Amino acid sequence: MNTKPQNTFEPTSRTTVKRSATRGIYDRDDIDKILDEALVCHVGFVDEAQPVVIPTIHVRMGDNIYIHGSHASRMIKCLLSGEPACLTVTLVDGLVLARSVFHHSMNYRSVVIFGQAFDVPDIEKKREISHALMDHVVPGRWAEARQPSENELAATAFIGLPLDECSAKARTGPPVDDDADYQLDVWAGVIPMSLSAGVPMDDDKLRAGIVAPEYANQYRRVQIK
Amino acid sequence: MNTKPQNTFEPTSRTTVKRSATRGIYDRDDIDKILDEALVCHVGFVDEAQPVVIPTIHVRMGDNIYIHGSHASRMIKCLLSGEPACLTVTLVDGLVLARSVFHHSMNYRSVVIFGQAFDVPDIEKKREISHALMDHVVPGRWAEARQPSENELAATAFIGLPLDECSAKARTGPPVDDDADYQLDVWAGVIPMSLSAGVPMDDDKLRAGIVAPEYANQYRRVQIK
Repeated sequence: MNTKPQNTFEPTSRTTVKRSATRGIYDRDDIDKILDEALVCHVGFVDEAQPVVIPTIHVRMGDNIYIHGSHASRMIKCLLSGEPACLTVTLVDGLVLARSVFHHSMNYRSVVIFGQAFDVPDIEKKREISHALMDHVVPGRWAEARQPSENELAATAFIGLPLDECSAKARTGPPVDDDADYQLDVWAGVIPMSLSAGVPMDDDKLRAGIVAPEYANQYRRVQIK
Repeated sequence: MNTKPQNTFEPTSRTTVKRSATRGIYDRDDIDKILDEALVCHVGFVDEAQPVVIPTIHVRMGDNIYIHGSHASRMIKCLLSGEPACLTVTLVDGLVLARSVFHHSMNYRSVVIFGQAFDVPDIEKKREISHALMDHVVPGRWAEARQPSENELAATAFIGLPLDECSAKARTGPPVDDDADYQLDVWAGVIPMSLSAGVPMDDDKLRAGIVAPEYANQYRRVQIK
């Protein structure tokens, strides 16, 4: 497990961004921001020679990413078998409408992490990660909800992936068209996109007199830019 | 390539949803709706024993999913090597806030497809897929933008994945708490989430007098529920 502070990742042959190389990002702060803003990740592992990609919730704590799940799940069992894993997060920031179909693109930020997962058996560490996961999804919720019991924590697998070998890729800005196409009578620009919240819906079984808290009414991962 | 109509997928040992088995979906129409609504997918492949997960845009056409990319990209090269692949799409529909931390969850719909990719070398088929990809991202755009030339289509790799072995998983509805926790003085409910569009931003180089089309001003993949 890497515990030393790291400001920039040294690209490896696997994390060097080769296609559109100018979109590569190796700065630690930039990578952390993407990992923290993304609500979910996609975990890749190999099960009997078959790659499998499963969405799940993650949280970054310092130099590690943590996820959790059932001890019986294929994902958890495969990740803990010691085989290599991949964890990817993707933020869709906008649709880039160029004057030609070919130059249409997407503004996005993504991070790809390669590594080997490790088990977190310690109950107190599990509690810390559970708290961090809750803060990742809904900041402020941990202090209000009924916190996990030892049995609940023991029944859940928590696993980590070190932030050792990773890189990010991003596209920002307007469309880039072929010179001749700028004369076309076609609108071009960017439609901003973001994962946005609607109005909270009370549970039907909610006790009378309890109203949705501010962190639910004002929920947002990021402003629409 | 599977061309026969298929209304329900026969779950295989790999596509049978085992964790929270009641969340498994094998109905073809339900699976198609999720694939069509999802803007991007995550493709999993194995490169020298390392699983790799990369986001990209997809489109479903009948019984196949198509993606495209550079002939030189690692993803395209690995997928066309004949090794097994996985393509996953995930829609985040809501944050489920239970009274206990442990029972917090997410409303989501996801599809996982296993298979072997095939190359699409034919230029006219590439044009069809290019049209379908454009319709998948921005319906109405194809007819207005400058359409791809033969050179542009030839320069791009298009590859398919048959919808043969796949399943979906979804969670909907309110939180489910332990009986004793319903008495707690804690708000519970669902915060609806969706990938939403902001106000279109004109390209700085836009010719005077061209305004954003309705499909940009009214862009949405789905209503916030």
